[in-house]
Amino acid sequence: MAKEKAKGITVKKEEDMPEWYEQVVIKGEIAEHAPVKGCMIIRPSGFTIWQNIVDFFDTKIKKMGVKNAYFPMFIPEEFFHKEAEHASGFNAEVAWIERKGEDKGRYAIRPTSETIIYDSYAKWIRSWRDLPLRMNQWCNICRWEVQDCKLFLRSREFLWQEGHCVYETEEECEKEALLYLEEYRKVAEELLAMPVIKGRKTDKEKFAGAKTTYTIETLMPDGKALQLGTSHNLGQGFAKAFGIEFLGKDEKKHLPWQNSWGISTRMVGATIMMHSDNKGLVLPPKVAPLQIVIVPILFDDTKDKVLKNCEEIVKSLKKYSVELDDREEYKPGWKFNEWEMKGVPLRIEFGPKDMENKQCVVARRDNGEKEFVKLKNLASVVDKTLDDIQKSLFNKAKKFMDDNTVEVNNWKDFEKAIKQKKIIKVPFSCDLEDEEEIKFKTKGATSRAIPLDLKPPKDKKCFFSGKPAKDWVYFAKNY
Amino acid sequence: MAKEKAKGITVKKEEDMPEWYEQVVIKGEIAEHAPVKGCMIIRPSGFTIWQNIVDFFDTKIKKMGVKNAYFPMFIPEEFFHKEAEHASGFNAEVAWIERKGEDKGRYAIRPTSETIIYDSYAKWIRSWRDLPLRMNQWCNICRWEVQDCKLFLRSREFLWQEGHCVYETEEECEKEALLYLEEYRKVAEELLAMPVIKGRKTDKEKFAGAKTTYTIETLMPDGKALQLGTSHNLGQGFAKAFGIEFLGKDEKKHLPWQNSWGISTRMVGATIMMHSDNKGLVLPPKVAPLQIVIVPILFDDTKDKVLKNCEEIVKSLKKYSVELDDREEYKPGWKFNEWEMKGVPLRIEFGPKDMENKQCVVARRDNGEKEFVKLKNLASVVDKTLDDIQKSLFNKAKKFMDDNTVEVNNWKDFEKAIKQKKIIKVPFSCDLEDEEEIKFKTKGATSRAIPLDLKPPKDKKCFFSGKPAKDWVYFAKNY
Repeated sequence: MAKEKAKGITVKKEEDMPEWYEQVVIKGEIAEHAPVKGCMIIRPSGFTIWQNIVDFFDTKIKKMGVKNAYFPMFIPEEFFHKEAEHASGFNAEVAWIERKGEDKGRYAIRPTSETIIYDSYAKWIRSWRDLPLRMNQWCNICRWEVQDCKLFLRSREFLWQEGHCVYETEEECEKEALLYLEEYRKVAEELLAMPVIKGRKTDKEKFAGAKTTYTIETLMPDGKALQLGTSHNLGQGFAKAFGIEFLGKDEKKHLPWQNSWGISTRMVGATIMMHSDNKGLVLPPKVAPLQIVIVPILFDDTKDKVLKNCEEIVKSLKKYSVELDDREEYKPGWKFNEWEMKGVPLRIEFGPKDMENKQCVVARRDNGEKEFVKLKNLASVVDKTLDDIQKSLFNKAKKFMDDNTVEVNNWKDFEKAIKQKKIIKVPFSCDLEDEEEIKFKTKGATSRAIPLDLKPPKDKKCFFSGKPAKDWVYFAKNY
Repeated sequence: MAKEKAKGITVKKEEDMPEWYEQVVIKGEIAEHAPVKGCMIIRPSGFTIWQNIVDFFDTKIKKMGVKNAYFPMFIPEEFFHKEAEHASGFNAEVAWIERKGEDKGRYAIRPTSETIIYDSYAKWIRSWRDLPLRMNQWCNICRWEVQDCKLFLRSREFLWQEGHCVYETEEECEKEALLYLEEYRKVAEELLAMPVIKGRKTDKEKFAGAKTTYTIETLMPDGKALQLGTSHNLGQGFAKAFGIEFLGKDEKKHLPWQNSWGISTRMVGATIMMHSDNKGLVLPPKVAPLQIVIVPILFDDTKDKVLKNCEEIVKSLKKYSVELDDREEYKPGWKFNEWEMKGVPLRIEFGPKDMENKQCVVARRDNGEKEFVKLKNLASVVDKTLDDIQKSLFNKAKKFMDDNTVEVNNWKDFEKAIKQKKIIKVPFSCDLEDEEEIKFKTKGATSRAIPLDLKPPKDKKCFFSGKPAKDWVYFAKNY
């Protein structure tokens, strides 16, 4: 097994991205395919990346007043029929299980939990004093229609969080839907070094039952866009369908406003696909399960002293996740390859000569650069270098996204740009049928987002229909 | 809703424990029954207690070298048939779902994950270098046979952790199975203030497929025993069934040894049933979602000053989870009742007179005692008092368990003790059929544990059969 791993990645990222990605994830021991159709096994390294995302985001939302809870994974079939759009949107995706000990009907394994949560909200919410109600759950989700698992990006079961909030006013609801989206941007950009476009979905692409869906989208190195997280302003539709009402300060009954928002283990896959290279995983230091590995150069006569020094180095870096690889059955060069495959951001090499010179070698995973560092400066150099790796990964991805974003105004240029695998900014009428036709004609280009930071175009014509353009819209092929 | 809650608990713990428990859990806003048969909804306060248990235990096992991972919730039917005892032990409990996009067969929703995890272990483990392998997952579990949900104690779906470790030698495996059990004892006794008996299960009560099952058992106030956690030495049975082998240092193939161990959200229910009283929840300070509540006594002329002082008090106690209840629509007495129902360990009262005297009132939830405390001493008094509450709850529960444990040597005394709702220590032959007969005759008394701290009896006769006794065994009725 160890020897197989040492073979490394056998295809190139630029030549066969799907196969390259599979190998990076599997050989990096992040995840693998389960013996269950469409499902994956998340191995400890992969799970630690997810746990780091969970910790980062959970801390943020707790400060915003959100509390965690847990609802059943089984949802009565009839709940799905209460909100018509929602029901039809999820119908094909649901795994059903026969009830037991009851007359009839089926339970769904949750594809999302709006319906079962809002059934409780209808019981819990009575007055304006109960609002805002901000709740979240971390759980597993089942989308049964998936047959072929793309590790982390698309699978029958995945892990996520779903936030569900209820407000007195539309303004609060809308404002906070955007606040949670902003927190998602921070997860993507600040933690995972992935630049995103913040935007709104067109009617065609919005969540089943939502008034507005907000999204963060990034661009993968193969020119496909990837939706990383969504926040939905649900309006009052679910409140109406589930009978959620509150007594206002005016002593009258009102329908509240709701939002829901989610990110998933897809974030892990996106991070890996974005940054990794032909040697294997490249991980942003802030989420790497192991941030620093120390590889000693061992000879019989100096072994004990070198290892003792290495243990001192480990101690001096203990605020990081750091490991001393003191295995004697493998040679340093073999270890270098293994830790590169596993994406450890920094490698420290230390041998007898370094001991003499009170130095070590610090090697960066992201760009392969190596430098000698005096041991007395090591802690500060490590701080600076890890910080620099984090920033470099973001800047590189940002440059790629900027370089591959184009603005076009007509169908001919659009077709060309889609073939060139660009994200394309266009003035668009946002007509549902036009959007379907575009998808059909391009074999898959969909609207990704109406950017939040741009005003609607003035006096522009839709690139597709020639009708007056309603919005700037980003199109791309997507995962 | 707020007014309904204020009604308080309408039955007494000593008179109708099941109804009392339901009311305490539901009115304390810990959990409630879901609109799905046999399932529960864990509300934020209940989930925080569980999260505190998770954090406590997860930190401990990480230090022991255990890593978290995540396996699919679906398990192929054929996996269950590989280990015969395991299959028959779980057969009745499983929810099945039809496969989609495959020829035939069904998937189980995991009732426990030995089979799907060990299928992977067979692929991952090659050599002694891969051992010990220590892995854990936090996940949801489904035991479909449950029809009537007893909140936290018995439900169709619950949350738990399951640890799965693999070792080269039987000694290591046995040693660590007992180490994890010892960590469970700490969760129960040190965190949740519940005394436990550490023991081994008889063959009748052990886990399906295990060589030995270790358990921690506590005694509920109604005289029923409750199993809080189990650790199984699985021997080599699963390794054999799933083809897990490793190349030893001797270059030969060997079967490894395995253990698995779990605790669940049942811990939350046990804690509540153990400590709570007729006013509602009583929670050990170490896991209480809210540890301190400050209730200001507000009059129009001094309101601003009193609230300002209260905010200072909040700041001075910020290492705890503390809340200032500054709602003006409720009177202090109403608030006292509400926070008592919710089990907040310490209440601080502060009004204009206290402001003058630079003091406050500190009231304990566990015994109702109130004392005036000078503000300058508040932080140290709070430290001491919370610590004392934690200890008092444990001591009270320990005394109850000791007082209700009896040793008997014959059937007549045993029958009497069972009627008196005792935990009964007996010399026993450990004969499977005898055990079934005892259960039948007493309408439910089962063996709970063979205590680890006692040597087998010498020259004693079995209390039931008169055959030579093999072990000391605790019997009780149980949840």
